[in-house]
Amino acid sequence: MRFSLNQWTTRHWPLPDLAEGCAAAGVTGVGLWREPVADYGVARTTELMRDHGLTVTSLCRGGFFQDPAALDDNRRAIEEAAELGAPVLCLVSGGLPDGSRDLDGARSRVADVLAELAPYAGEHGVRLALEPLHPMYASDRCVVSTLGQALDLAAPFPSSQVGVMIDTYHLWWDPDVWDGIARAGAVGRLALFQVADWVTPLPEGVLTGRGMLGDGCIELRRFREAVDATGYTGPIEVEIFNEELWAMPGQEALALTLSRYKEHIT
Amino acid sequence: MRFSLNQWTTRHWPLPDLAEGCAAAGVTGVGLWREPVADYGVARTTELMRDHGLTVTSLCRGGFFQDPAALDDNRRAIEEAAELGAPVLCLVSGGLPDGSRDLDGARSRVADVLAELAPYAGEHGVRLALEPLHPMYASDRCVVSTLGQALDLAAPFPSSQVGVMIDTYHLWWDPDVWDGIARAGAVGRLALFQVADWVTPLPEGVLTGRGMLGDGCIELRRFREAVDATGYTGPIEVEIFNEELWAMPGQEALALTLSRYKEHIT
Repeated sequence: MRFSLNQWTTRHWPLPDLAEGCAAAGVTGVGLWREPVADYGVARTTELMRDHGLTVTSLCRGGFFQDPAALDDNRRAIEEAAELGAPVLCLVSGGLPDGSRDLDGARSRVADVLAELAPYAGEHGVRLALEPLHPMYASDRCVVSTLGQALDLAAPFPSSQVGVMIDTYHLWWDPDVWDGIARAGAVGRLALFQVADWVTPLPEGVLTGRGMLGDGCIELRRFREAVDATGYTGPIEVEIFNEELWAMPGQEALALTLSRYKEHIT
Repeated sequence: MRFSLNQWTTRHWPLPDLAEGCAAAGVTGVGLWREPVADYGVARTTELMRDHGLTVTSLCRGGFFQDPAALDDNRRAIEEAAELGAPVLCLVSGGLPDGSRDLDGARSRVADVLAELAPYAGEHGVRLALEPLHPMYASDRCVVSTLGQALDLAAPFPSSQVGVMIDTYHLWWDPDVWDGIARAGAVGRLALFQVADWVTPLPEGVLTGRGMLGDGCIELRRFREAVDATGYTGPIEVEIFNEELWAMPGQEALALTLSRYKEHIT
């Protein structure tokens, strides 16, 4: 089963309930987030996952490279991913520093910090996965906005150390995305595939308006087929930031997600 | 003076007041919108502009090519632009039809309708200007999301009939934008340059959150210099959709806009 539940999809579901609920639903993969894992404890989380037959498909997230403490914080994130057995650490590269207009500089900084982190990730058996975020987040969350740009940033490093993520929500609009997916596959950089749908109107702050699979306008199955065509056989994580979904009981949200996944992805 | 006041920047300023206010401030160019022009009358507007020594630098807007009535409506827009003496008709290409996920199809439709309209625009001495809009509008306003894509769509037509617009708000995040501007200049397609700044958080619906020049993170002067470097000597239209600005008296909003223009653009 390639389906993986990204924890943020059922954001308020406590980790033990999530583990039990996933196991009950036959789900075998979960993408975890650092903050709830830290609250529960990394070692305890590792044990909890193992006890429920769950694989940690990714840890979200490192990045935010403009932060002065970025290097230390990302090293800790790599260590946590290694302890959890997560093969992939998701990287959201961060926006512009306060008051800055130097987008090129912020993008260069991503390259510089990656150069520091990549060998450390390699030593820990963790792959860094650069996530291009939708351009509407370019100033405040992530200066890496396209798949092509993420691939260019990853290129100097061994593909075992640095890959890219493909999230349908962030990339669906890009006329170059199909070429980009093929390129990511050809150069062995496709580290993780995530899915969410695009719906409008966008909410204030544009953070929590991702759509349940099938509710929006993204050709989700076309993405899955394009990713598969590169030879990617890894997990398909469903990651949906959505207030309505978060208001649902975890088990119900998971059931809806699984049903939509079967209908629109497989 | 290359400064031009796009009418939407002072959205609630009645046309006669706007004409008088611009003349009093030494402004010689205005970008007009079809709806208020229709309310005032095209012929009366033409006369009003002439009486105040104002040049109409563009008419906003045609496009919305997915609409079944698009062809007729755009022909009327071309006729109106010609009557106003506006050299450029701004085109916002429209989003996906309701319930559609066929982004490629919607993009093809833009090409098809352009082919119908381009000769008609040529006969009227009006240049169609394809505006790439920020990717956050791709589903509901404009399936043309990058400058490169706009240039590809314009390519089959004589450059006197179809050009592209460069609006800093829509394009600032694009790592390829500097190459795109140079390319637009090299192929003679740069029809209009508009400026607004990027500020966050974005408001609900993301339509009215554009920033006053200098309030955001765009390298505005770098854009102006890159556009100038192509040989473009046309107007620089300030087009800002912003609730706070709209709440100001027109003359005050214009004075602020002019002052920021001098500080951040020239």
